[in-house]
Amino acid sequence: MSPVVTSTDRYLTRASAPAQWIDRSDPVIHHPLGLDAPGPLSAPELRRYTRDGYVVLPAVFSTEECQLLVAEVDRFGAAAAADDSTVIHEPDGEAVRSLFALHRRDGLLSAFCHDPRLVRRAEQVLYSKSWIHQSRVNRKAAFDGREFGWHSDFETWHAEDGLSDMRALSIMVALTDNLAANGPLLVIPGSHRTFVPCPGATPDQNWRSSLRRQEYGVPDRGAITRLAADGGVEAVVARAGSVVLFDCNLLHASAGNLTPVPRTNVFVVYASGENQLVTPFAGSAPRPWFLCDRERPEARR
Amino acid sequence: MSPVVTSTDRYLTRASAPAQWIDRSDPVIHHPLGLDAPGPLSAPELRRYTRDGYVVLPAVFSTEECQLLVAEVDRFGAAAAADDSTVIHEPDGEAVRSLFALHRRDGLLSAFCHDPRLVRRAEQVLYSKSWIHQSRVNRKAAFDGREFGWHSDFETWHAEDGLSDMRALSIMVALTDNLAANGPLLVIPGSHRTFVPCPGATPDQNWRSSLRRQEYGVPDRGAITRLAADGGVEAVVARAGSVVLFDCNLLHASAGNLTPVPRTNVFVVYASGENQLVTPFAGSAPRPWFLCDRERPEARR
Repeated sequence: MSPVVTSTDRYLTRASAPAQWIDRSDPVIHHPLGLDAPGPLSAPELRRYTRDGYVVLPAVFSTEECQLLVAEVDRFGAAAAADDSTVIHEPDGEAVRSLFALHRRDGLLSAFCHDPRLVRRAEQVLYSKSWIHQSRVNRKAAFDGREFGWHSDFETWHAEDGLSDMRALSIMVALTDNLAANGPLLVIPGSHRTFVPCPGATPDQNWRSSLRRQEYGVPDRGAITRLAADGGVEAVVARAGSVVLFDCNLLHASAGNLTPVPRTNVFVVYASGENQLVTPFAGSAPRPWFLCDRERPEARR
Repeated sequence: MSPVVTSTDRYLTRASAPAQWIDRSDPVIHHPLGLDAPGPLSAPELRRYTRDGYVVLPAVFSTEECQLLVAEVDRFGAAAAADDSTVIHEPDGEAVRSLFALHRRDGLLSAFCHDPRLVRRAEQVLYSKSWIHQSRVNRKAAFDGREFGWHSDFETWHAEDGLSDMRALSIMVALTDNLAANGPLLVIPGSHRTFVPCPGATPDQNWRSSLRRQEYGVPDRGAITRLAADGGVEAVVARAGSVVLFDCNLLHASAGNLTPVPRTNVFVVYASGENQLVTPFAGSAPRPWFLCDRERPEARR
């Protein structure tokens, strides 16, 4: 299958030669009223999201809701078959490190992904009905929780999933406290305004290794250094129940966890119903359904 | 040489069998007036140091002083012979990762270790003349700076250097910004009140490997978990020029650095002139002079 790379690819990446940075040509707030867009996000929250590429909203979910969700993740993890590729266990085989496709699971987890507290905020930014591109729980184990390097999600979704436009965002919900010391999300504020092409042709089934450590879709260190010189690097501290909206193109990473306190976050990716999924721009085979849900059921509502 | 372990060893460690925790029998503030001790540290600062085992003092040194010190570290690093064991370079051989024995080097670095802004605060806590047990610069490289695990300095100094009492403290000076995201010091507030014996007979020349990764003098994870349940875990954020006083028995670690921003800290260990250096309690040969200065020149002033 030959890749569909036409002149409409505004965000060319995974080329063999180093490429220039590309200024973002999509809006950050898609609503034509911009910061005055009506909805649950206030104008100051929209302003922060526009400027920094993310915004933290404390205490959106209760402690009890968070505890129920953690228990539900454990239940699905314990019930999963050994060859279930939607569940990744810790190397010792016990705890669940990642659980994918929450929006396709019965009961609490699916309801959570469609909770109006998340969907209404996402659709305020996207200015359209949305569909869920991906959803997952990520846990960072106590003491041994590993770091994860710098990347833009959109770069991968564009290259490996064929997501056309920067009209998508992630909502992270902290189910346990994200402290400065226990492996928080790290972000470069303002980096969402620049698309940094990443070098290297993408092998098929790259996702099998990239969930542990990315080798493709990694911006070069010079780019990270220059963007961080402008925007700094922030550790996103968020108490359990907090919600973090972050733009699909925000450069982020995740610190290691040396503390005895594990941390658990949910990520749900909402994309606009008008954001097309086409043949992956990097020319590799599409990723599996639990990493990119090509059925887009919500978009057909 | 047979170890001198008598009934006067109040902090027995490195035994073959697991041992009970030991309540600290030394004061934290050695001045008999306690929080009213006269000197540069205010009563609120002494209160925080007593309660948490550390205190952060912003803006003690100027940006210019910090830059001069960084340049001086670079100068000594560049001039060091390849077999100089007081300098540890990064694996690529370029930058200096650690430089020891600052107080034995001419000029700025020695003057810095004896700066009254440091010594007067140390001696206020110690209630005596002090001597410098060890001094060093530690750098955490951008992107690849490695974490360092949980430990009490006193445990090692007692076991491997023969430092008798908890009448010593470290002063850390941030020469560059210590951010939540670039590998800050992590501490368990309040942990300085408990001595956690660490298992395992200590091999001779353990220091050759322990500077990279400790295998002896490591508290078990259950102890860290219980102490952190009481005191939490804090990332010590400190702008360049800030000073952090921390007790010799405070459990601490150091996070990895994923950011493009390296960080450089100086540590100077001040011990009371009345704190004896005897035969190491763990029965191993004493560590070299640049890790434990047994000449104690200042104590003879």
